[in-house]
Amino acid sequence: MRVDLNADVGESFGACTVGDDGALMPAITSASIAAGFHGGDPTILRATIRLARSAGVAIGAHPGLPDLAGFGRRDMALTPREVEDLTLYQVAAVAGVAAAEGVRLQHVKPHGAFYSRAVHDRAWADAIARGVAAIDRLLIVVGPAGSALLDAAREQGLPTAAEVFADRAYQAEGALLPRNRPGAVLTDPAVVVPRAIRMVREQAVVASDGTVVPRAVETICVHGDTPGAAALAASVRAGLEAAGIEVRALRAP
Amino acid sequence: MRVDLNADVGESFGACTVGDDGALMPAITSASIAAGFHGGDPTILRATIRLARSAGVAIGAHPGLPDLAGFGRRDMALTPREVEDLTLYQVAAVAGVAAAEGVRLQHVKPHGAFYSRAVHDRAWADAIARGVAAIDRLLIVVGPAGSALLDAAREQGLPTAAEVFADRAYQAEGALLPRNRPGAVLTDPAVVVPRAIRMVREQAVVASDGTVVPRAVETICVHGDTPGAAALAASVRAGLEAAGIEVRALRAP
Amino acid sequence: MRVDLNADVGESFGACTVGDDGALMPAITSASIAAGFHGGDPTILRATIRLARSAGVAIGAHPGLPDLAGFGRRDMALTPREVEDLTLYQVAAVAGVAAAEGVRLQHVKPHGAFYSRAVHDRAWADAIARGVAAIDRLLIVVGPAGSALLDAAREQGLPTAAEVFADRAYQAEGALLPRNRPGAVLTDPAVVVPRAIRMVREQAVVASDGTVVPRAVETICVHGDTPGAAALAASVRAGLEAAGIEVRALRAP
Amino acid sequence: MRVDLNADVGESFGACTVGDDGALMPAITSASIAAGFHGGDPTILRATIRLARSAGVAIGAHPGLPDLAGFGRRDMALTPREVEDLTLYQVAAVAGVAAAEGVRLQHVKPHGAFYSRAVHDRAWADAIARGVAAIDRLLIVVGPAGSALLDAAREQGLPTAAEVFADRAYQAEGALLPRNRPGAVLTDPAVVVPRAIRMVREQAVVASDGTVVPRAVETICVHGDTPGAAALAASVRAGLEAAGIEVRALRAP
Repeated sequence: MRVDLNADVGESFGACTVGDDGALMPAITSASIAAGFHGGDPTILRATIRLARSAGVAIGAHPGLPDLAGFGRRDMALTPREVEDLTLYQVAAVAGVAAAEGVRLQHVKPHGAFYSRAVHDRAWADAIARGVAAIDRLLIVVGPAGSALLDAAREQGLPTAAEVFADRAYQAEGALLPRNRPGAVLTDPAVVVPRAIRMVREQAVVASDGTVVPRAVETICVHGDTPGAAALAASVRAGLEAAGIEVRALRAP
Repeated sequence: MRVDLNADVGESFGACTVGDDGALMPAITSASIAAGFHGGDPTILRATIRLARSAGVAIGAHPGLPDLAGFGRRDMALTPREVEDLTLYQVAAVAGVAAAEGVRLQHVKPHGAFYSRAVHDRAWADAIARGVAAIDRLLIVVGPAGSALLDAAREQGLPTAAEVFADRAYQAEGALLPRNRPGAVLTDPAVVVPRAIRMVREQAVVASDGTVVPRAVETICVHGDTPGAAALAASVRAGLEAAGIEVRALRAP
Repeated sequence: MRVDLNADVGESFGACTVGDDGALMPAITSASIAAGFHGGDPTILRATIRLARSAGVAIGAHPGLPDLAGFGRRDMALTPREVEDLTLYQVAAVAGVAAAEGVRLQHVKPHGAFYSRAVHDRAWADAIARGVAAIDRLLIVVGPAGSALLDAAREQGLPTAAEVFADRAYQAEGALLPRNRPGAVLTDPAVVVPRAIRMVREQAVVASDGTVVPRAVETICVHGDTPGAAALAASVRAGLEAAGIEVRALRAP
Repeated sequence: MRVDLNADVGESFGACTVGDDGALMPAITSASIAAGFHGGDPTILRATIRLARSAGVAIGAHPGLPDLAGFGRRDMALTPREVEDLTLYQVAAVAGVAAAEGVRLQHVKPHGAFYSRAVHDRAWADAIARGVAAIDRLLIVVGPAGSALLDAAREQGLPTAAEVFADRAYQAEGALLPRNRPGAVLTDPAVVVPRAIRMVREQAVVASDGTVVPRAVETICVHGDTPGAAALAASVRAGLEAAGIEVRALRAP
């Protein structure tokens, strides 16, 4: 059994620090790096790519909505064309900076509301998949199994990776509990670690009411901006490995 | 003997947190609140005004350069007209939101490069003073004694308050040691507290080489984004009071 | 019979020019001035206030969503608190700059998606009305008769003005035809002028299919960014006056 | 004799239109496309690349300072690292979007204050050259002959192209007359066309006082945001060709 462990990183901006990427990096196998629209800036992007490279962590682009003030977590009424062009621009920027640092992108994972919307909105999912495919047809699109996003990616001939969230609660029908609801974000390693192990072993997510929802699990996310994310990710990794689950990137770097 | 103790607050933005305003507020007597250009946003501005009001802290506007990515610390080649209009807009916004919360502004203190430039550039200083005066001629302009900023303010008929920085090193001629130089930011209470007391008692700043530069001291700044700012400010306040120096706002709220 | 003629102005930004405010101003009686979030900047705001003052045009604040790239025309999933704080900040800024120029605000009219959403979303409408009321309870809230926005404004004790759009097509149920639909924006004076006259005389809007929808008409909008807006507004004003309809601001300046 | 004719394009943003790129494109042989920092956005960038490709115009990246409000024309105190990272990010984004459209970048030309500063500031010039070289060592760096920018580019092993401005006045020592000075921008074809021909024939610029300053001329710029730019560029091109000067891109597409 094996799984990838990913986190969102490079989301600091100017004087503002989001997460502790230096501490987080050794624990993960794939890093989704902000492209400057919901977080990140050119200097932080490059520094984060170097950090990931040094840690042997595979790199992906983490495109977001153009809403720095809302950290890309507020849905916006964009047209499919805007969605496609935003994806293309952001993936191009991250891929180009990574190439300048000698690294090839492994994956693309949309951020926040860009991701949530693409889970169920096929027009957005298609637009994102077209934007990714226009850059490089070997890029792996990361999203939940069964989502419009992964369907659209496959239709564009792109490889996919099915993701679950170790640090987020799920609803009975398998959707994430929204962030503004109590208990939506899980931070206790005693809860999160066994949860992650079970997700991989059973290839399923467990909803807040106990419902077990079958779901392919190829990569597990720990959010980089969750308080204590670095320690949590390290615990998840240690727990997975202790349970005999190999933790490695989606694709060999 | 008396002095005001001020800090820059409300500089968080979206998902990014700058400083710990809730912890800092009880220690200070005046708060300079970011207006949304170098930091802050409408929701954080209003919440910070409420926080200051609850703590009985006097409120000022903290206008900055339009450079969120640089936290307002990078000098920009603005025209005096742009400087005046930026000041007017930002002070108007903070004053209006404060008024909606039942509070009248006490002071205006420019931020970062907006402040540094106004210390020596009389055209900028005049533009800032005109912008403030256009709003309310009772607003106190905060800046270093002897600066172009305070000269310009007085010429506009505005009251002024002479400021020193407890947590920053000074050069022999009395200017701040730039932030990118080693030792520019002081964080050890064992250094900062006696320094603050001496500043008030001697009405002077002490440069890194020991030179004592006479300087009026009406308000002492502790930067809100310095690590450990809240504890440092509390120590400074306790130290000042223990030394028999009354710590209170520039103007009774 | 009388009516106010309003336009959105001050929406240029940096090197970008939106509309021709100098040509438009003499034709209108009320100007809704962008506050810097969907368009406008501190220098353009102040210059536009001076322009309106010189032309004897009443001034209002035109707050918008924080989406300069989308010109505030893309809906965003904000919380009511964010909506209220965005309103408060933007109205405070425009009111304060206007006061510095010796002018008192007459009205507040939300822009683009901020307006469209407040027409039917009572939570947004309430949030906007609270933001306006916190600044000044004499500010007139401008919106369509029968909208959630005007209901919310009245509940906050704010005066209101019922608005129609001379240069936009209506649907049978009385809603605006969305901008992305053919024929949504009307620019031919031969169509727009008699349409405006009929709106005032019949206190109604006429839908694309000929349906007459009764609707109070206290102010007519001509969009400042519609091509040929200045000439169109001048034609509308001349047509209204030739038809014996007095064109004047909502409140005497 | 031959020369390239270039213009800055793709600088519109959201609802704001800068220049008339569609009319300009047929007149020029190289287009410097804004990357989204001083102007442009992902949708405009892609549309402009398609427009240039259709017109057979060679494409370059036009990186600028992160100052949309000032259209990148206000100098900012960035560190060399920030300069390098800004260059790398913006060139990566434009190169990647161009590649997705089947086009390879020909050149890089910094915009506004980014360009002016790199003319004389070797630290900035080196940082820009490093940023370009990290992407692709075949990219041609465009700047004035004799500038720090071209010296730095050559030191990085990058090809260069010496640029003059047909529509800008020069000072006696060969520097551009600043934009805020009267007569700085030339728009009369009767002045600009013979001026351009003379520049190529004599490989020199003529200052406002008549001084002839020898200067290599490989590409001539007509600014896309100058009023009447499209007609002016067409006149310059027709004039050059009528004078027997071949007008073609720096490198065959």
